[in-house]
Amino acid sequence: MPLIPVLEQQVIHDLLLVLDLAGTFVFAISGAMLGVRRNLDIFGILVLSFAASSAGGITRDLLIGAVPPAAISDWRYLAVALAAGLMAFFWSSLIVRLRTAILIFDAAGLALFAVAGTQKALAYGLNPLMAALLGMLTGIGGGILRDLLVTQTPAVLRSDLYALAALAGAVLVVVGHALIWPIVPTAIAGAVTCFGLRLMAIRHG
Amino acid sequence: MPLIPVLEQQVIHDLLLVLDLAGTFVFAISGAMLGVRRNLDIFGILVLSFAASSAGGITRDLLIGAVPPAAISDWRYLAVALAAGLMAFFWSSLIVRLRTAILIFDAAGLALFAVAGTQKALAYGLNPLMAALLGMLTGIGGGILRDLLVTQTPAVLRSDLYALAALAGAVLVVVGHALIWPIVPTAIAGAVTCFGLRLMAIRHG
Amino acid sequence: MPLIPVLEQQVIHDLLLVLDLAGTFVFAISGAMLGVRRNLDIFGILVLSFAASSAGGITRDLLIGAVPPAAISDWRYLAVALAAGLMAFFWSSLIVRLRTAILIFDAAGLALFAVAGTQKALAYGLNPLMAALLGMLTGIGGGILRDLLVTQTPAVLRSDLYALAALAGAVLVVVGHALIWPIVPTAIAGAVTCFGLRLMAIRHG
Repeated sequence: MPLIPVLEQQVIHDLLLVLDLAGTFVFAISGAMLGVRRNLDIFGILVLSFAASSAGGITRDLLIGAVPPAAISDWRYLAVALAAGLMAFFWSSLIVRLRTAILIFDAAGLALFAVAGTQKALAYGLNPLMAALLGMLTGIGGGILRDLLVTQTPAVLRSDLYALAALAGAVLVVVGHALIWPIVPTAIAGAVTCFGLRLMAIRHG
Repeated sequence: MPLIPVLEQQVIHDLLLVLDLAGTFVFAISGAMLGVRRNLDIFGILVLSFAASSAGGITRDLLIGAVPPAAISDWRYLAVALAAGLMAFFWSSLIVRLRTAILIFDAAGLALFAVAGTQKALAYGLNPLMAALLGMLTGIGGGILRDLLVTQTPAVLRSDLYALAALAGAVLVVVGHALIWPIVPTAIAGAVTCFGLRLMAIRHG
Repeated sequence: MPLIPVLEQQVIHDLLLVLDLAGTFVFAISGAMLGVRRNLDIFGILVLSFAASSAGGITRDLLIGAVPPAAISDWRYLAVALAAGLMAFFWSSLIVRLRTAILIFDAAGLALFAVAGTQKALAYGLNPLMAALLGMLTGIGGGILRDLLVTQTPAVLRSDLYALAALAGAVLVVVGHALIWPIVPTAIAGAVTCFGLRLMAIRHG
């Protein structure tokens, strides 16, 4: 593990947690909405919420050896995912009308997860190439499991711009890490890059 | 890891093993029966037997950091799963007629896995909320992979009472752990709760 | 971990790497070809390439506790998988005409992975039965995830001879290990066994 000053480690830790919980919330909503559309009952909807919000991060944590994964050892991830799932269940008519807002939330979640996932992989000493890919996986992994659970081919396999936006944000974080840029501005730049690419794709797609 | 007297540790260990192997047997039969119904050959049937009986426990072990998972390091799990798969293959006409008996066995397997999974997660120091959910996952994880392998939406996502029965048994074990109830009676109470809820659902469903 | 002379350890290590990278290449092509047939775009094709080539080895590494898995920590696996995926994408018309050549390559990949997976599991101290099964899993795991990602029942569940060929090669490696046969000839014998069984099945199937 690289030597990082203690204060900066605390900043990274807090930043990762906030990014992760925010991303968890918006992805849980995307999972719950798919469950509502497929007429699952409340339990199935909550499972999809948790799967969509946590499968990417859990897979990343298993692959880098961060066991038990944060989404398992820290109850806040589950609480946020279940709260989002319940909101989507009880206010699903509202959410269907807010289709564009949801797309924007999803873009934000992707940006947050890609940046947080990349930083965690770097913190565990992975090489830059794999750290960027694990960042992308953190962003898209939840959506893949969400789609597989209702047996549809994962949407991300059919729309490459989605994954590439995550990869662009992740690469920016990795480059910043290699050039020893300050961490918080680099994270913001990575997230804005991914988010901006998604907004452009939503507007023109 | 909590300080537990050596004798009690041995009791927990033996209890976990017996519960696990019994649950392995009945779930392997459920996997093999799905394979028979889908006209898989003997190899596919045995894979479904092992997947249905072990995927939940293997996932739990990966998530709590118990590596290699018990179902991998201990040959008895595999032996029990393959024996059950072969029985279901050669006596499948019998098993189809015993539909109700199988449902009762499946209820027993769910109860055994939910209790054993919760106790193992507690023994690895997870917080009570996550220990209960990992107990539920131990119970329903095998069925999820079993269904995904033949590309059908996991049955458990469509019938919430199944997972809730597992969760009820798991929660009882967690509560007993928090209140320092004796371990064996708590385990029995948890298993009976889950089993009873399933029997009621089968009878009235 | 067993005591093995240093030189022999180096031989095993180099052998595992070469077998693994060669197997990675041919399996990545099988994944890319399925993506081409399903009209996935380039990103989806590359994901299937990596999944088909690495899912078996990654699962094995997670199960034996070799974290981070080789396919994650060593960039060469990814590079080989992406190169194979790009080749299959740009020369897909060629690959479709080379259907038989691809089947032969796939047989070679299966043989290489089954042998390499078994040796790695033995090196991590697993018991012989499970080492052979993990060798088989290394060989067939990538194809299972490849098929699940496009929501088709894994081909290997429907054609048992495929998995049995992998198992035969793996068992030979395990037997050689138990009888302390020299490592390289045993590996070659295991790979030739698996490869030969596949060729016979392709010719007569």
